[in-house]
Amino acid sequence: MKLLKLMCAVPFLVACSESAEQSTDASQSSSVMPVEHIQTAERLRDAGLQSDLAWEIVEDLTTEVGPRMPGTEADLRGVAWMKQRFEDLGFDRVYLEPVTYPLWKRQSESARIIAPNDQVVRVTALGGSVGTDGELRGEVVFFESIDELAQADSSLVEGKIAYISKRMEKTIDGAGYGPVVAGRSAGARVAGEKGAIAVVIRSVGTDSDRFPHTGMMRYDESIPKIPAAALSNPDADQLERLLERGAVELGLSLDVGFTGEFQSHNVIAEVTGSRWPDEIVLIGGHLDSWDLGTGALDDGAGVAVTTAAAAMLLNEDSRPGRTVRVVAFANEEQGLIGAYHYAEAHGDDLENHFVGSESDFGAGRVWRFDTGVSEDLLPQYEDAFKVIQPLGIIRGGLESGGGPDIIPMKNLGMQTFRLSQDGTDYFDYHHTENDTLDKIDPEALKQNLAAWVSMVYLTSHMER
Amino acid sequence: MKLLKLMCAVPFLVACSESAEQSTDASQSSSVMPVEHIQTAERLRDAGLQSDLAWEIVEDLTTEVGPRMPGTEADLRGVAWMKQRFEDLGFDRVYLEPVTYPLWKRQSESARIIAPNDQVVRVTALGGSVGTDGELRGEVVFFESIDELAQADSSLVEGKIAYISKRMEKTIDGAGYGPVVAGRSAGARVAGEKGAIAVVIRSVGTDSDRFPHTGMMRYDESIPKIPAAALSNPDADQLERLLERGAVELGLSLDVGFTGEFQSHNVIAEVTGSRWPDEIVLIGGHLDSWDLGTGALDDGAGVAVTTAAAAMLLNEDSRPGRTVRVVAFANEEQGLIGAYHYAEAHGDDLENHFVGSESDFGAGRVWRFDTGVSEDLLPQYEDAFKVIQPLGIIRGGLESGGGPDIIPMKNLGMQTFRLSQDGTDYFDYHHTENDTLDKIDPEALKQNLAAWVSMVYLTSHMER
Repeated sequence: MKLLKLMCAVPFLVACSESAEQSTDASQSSSVMPVEHIQTAERLRDAGLQSDLAWEIVEDLTTEVGPRMPGTEADLRGVAWMKQRFEDLGFDRVYLEPVTYPLWKRQSESARIIAPNDQVVRVTALGGSVGTDGELRGEVVFFESIDELAQADSSLVEGKIAYISKRMEKTIDGAGYGPVVAGRSAGARVAGEKGAIAVVIRSVGTDSDRFPHTGMMRYDESIPKIPAAALSNPDADQLERLLERGAVELGLSLDVGFTGEFQSHNVIAEVTGSRWPDEIVLIGGHLDSWDLGTGALDDGAGVAVTTAAAAMLLNEDSRPGRTVRVVAFANEEQGLIGAYHYAEAHGDDLENHFVGSESDFGAGRVWRFDTGVSEDLLPQYEDAFKVIQPLGIIRGGLESGGGPDIIPMKNLGMQTFRLSQDGTDYFDYHHTENDTLDKIDPEALKQNLAAWVSMVYLTSHMER
Repeated sequence: MKLLKLMCAVPFLVACSESAEQSTDASQSSSVMPVEHIQTAERLRDAGLQSDLAWEIVEDLTTEVGPRMPGTEADLRGVAWMKQRFEDLGFDRVYLEPVTYPLWKRQSESARIIAPNDQVVRVTALGGSVGTDGELRGEVVFFESIDELAQADSSLVEGKIAYISKRMEKTIDGAGYGPVVAGRSAGARVAGEKGAIAVVIRSVGTDSDRFPHTGMMRYDESIPKIPAAALSNPDADQLERLLERGAVELGLSLDVGFTGEFQSHNVIAEVTGSRWPDEIVLIGGHLDSWDLGTGALDDGAGVAVTTAAAAMLLNEDSRPGRTVRVVAFANEEQGLIGAYHYAEAHGDDLENHFVGSESDFGAGRVWRFDTGVSEDLLPQYEDAFKVIQPLGIIRGGLESGGGPDIIPMKNLGMQTFRLSQDGTDYFDYHHTENDTLDKIDPEALKQNLAAWVSMVYLTSHMER
């Protein structure tokens, strides 16, 4: 029975209606939440499965605005677009909150193998990297991982370009990201401390396409700042084949760097709660993207799904109990900057934030539901889970995060839930030129919307 | 029985050995070719399935030489590498024949949407295009196909950038290529005649990745020469979504063009025939590639498979009857230039060319065998087909081409056969940055080698 229900993914929902009904009946017979809320949530879920609204939002965002790199003219266009979209959807309240951050610019980037022969390789600067001031040339030294680099004698690295080879594994939950991302974020610190002139990593990505993956890195002020860049996976393979044959000289040209500050905004919209208007259910995604692609998966989809879910609660017959607040966060990519600003601006009010959750893991189908709430809320969340279970979602654990932009608030004690998306292919596209609208399956987006709208509605009506 | 044999693809060959044996027995009982030739061909086929030689060749070519754009320093390095490789393999004769052609250079290329908003789009100049002399800006006019453009009134196009939208369909045999490639080769002529300032096409490719596909185009001396470029498929989608919303201004910067002449070489190796040394079985691939990728599929694989097949015939117990000549053709990409030179240089000797065939359709498994030979040879080719049938190959028709570089000789009357490869994914990578070694399946390459070595061996021993 349980297996049968797990198989009730969207394409089969009609065929599985019997078991979905059974599931619903079962929940009603033992539910702690009022039946009318369960029934409204089911109606919202089914309407979500039929709705094009999330698709329309992400289609328009990625087309009208395109890439939304923090600190660019398109960042500001994105803010204006989002505010207008919220207003057009008829949210009860729409407003901006300023977010200021250091401005990092990517002007140009290229690389080539110089010896043993001249070949162009595809490279991207890591976010936050210093530039190379023309072409920086150096011999490449191979390291299996950042750990191997950390253990290496400085004499091996001094005056050379340290290369970190570690490849990311593909999994549904992105578990392969953690073990390799240290090479990206800390590679320049470790290599710089040993006297390297630059660090180049194999992209943190699971594809085999010639798209380098960007993403943030950090310096330590006490260590010389050296340029940091990522090669696409096929270019990393090529470099490694050449290194097996002998010495390799690489030329790296990165015109990038920090230059002043920039002010953008968190863009916020609310559906006022009918029962407890002063309490907040916080949802959202991040409005910024990297510059390379149009940020369809990261995180246009998340903004679109959560916006659409909240917009569906504007109808008189499905008003939320608490106020549902959608935040399109500024500059997540360069360090959750909009999120930290939010936590600071709303720190005094966080006790009124009931639960928070972000959608920021692409546009795959939701496959798992986790909670990070107090024990006394769990019976109501088990009711809520039964509503989304027929969408092909399994019950996860009790220690959910809430998404990257929820971290600052979770650290201050906010409760969370997570609707985990299938991320099997997410890191094929993540932080590359190839993160574009064609990578989104509109049907999967409908399933996301169905899960979000029903879960947010029920959360808003839960008794404390 | 026949179905069973068709299922005997490489991974299952051992399990299918019984039916393969039956097939062989059947052919022997009715074969017109001597049993010892059939048995040697079967032994070569099975050795091919175990051989890494083709993989080693293409790995080394794409790594040591990299991209092999005609007219570059790497073109000459490729010629030297090929000659050395032929010599190292111990061919009976290795020599060069000069090939001269107009030199077309790609210095840089970029494009952006200027209005309604500023967005970078991924573009590549088509081979043979003139440059833009800085950034060329113009309004984009949409055409479904080159036919629609051809029928359009000039007033619609004058002073604007004509855009051709037609998308390529994916098929096993590349049948989708023909219907769209006219837009690439002739778009600038048709648009130029109507007063357009440039032509931009949707890439002739079946992927949805942000890799534009290059390839040749031609001007007519009587028509103004306008720049010609291709957008990647996702960028073409983006342009079309913007065009649905209103006017689009595009900026195109192509620093490309012809500049003088260049001399490269066809690189040729022979295994001298044991029975009719003056008669030639002509096989090969093209050594050049486009500059964007490393030409692993197009046509490193073809060079590697045919070289490896010929090299296997150097053993004393598998000498060919006729001389097997492998040609690594120069500059196929810009108009079969090495092939036309070969036809001219060897025109007087073409009657001694028994049969010719090229491998130039990627690195997929051979799935079909076609012949283009005189009727009296067919009984021997049916024998030969039975040897390769257990590799999962079906018998095609009697009107084969022999591959692009065989066209000039076929036009002069040369007989041909074709070992057609599964090209389902070929046009995902064709003429892009993404044509790299990781796209080759070493097991599929072994199956290719098995088919080629047995077919070439038997062809060399056929009675006229």
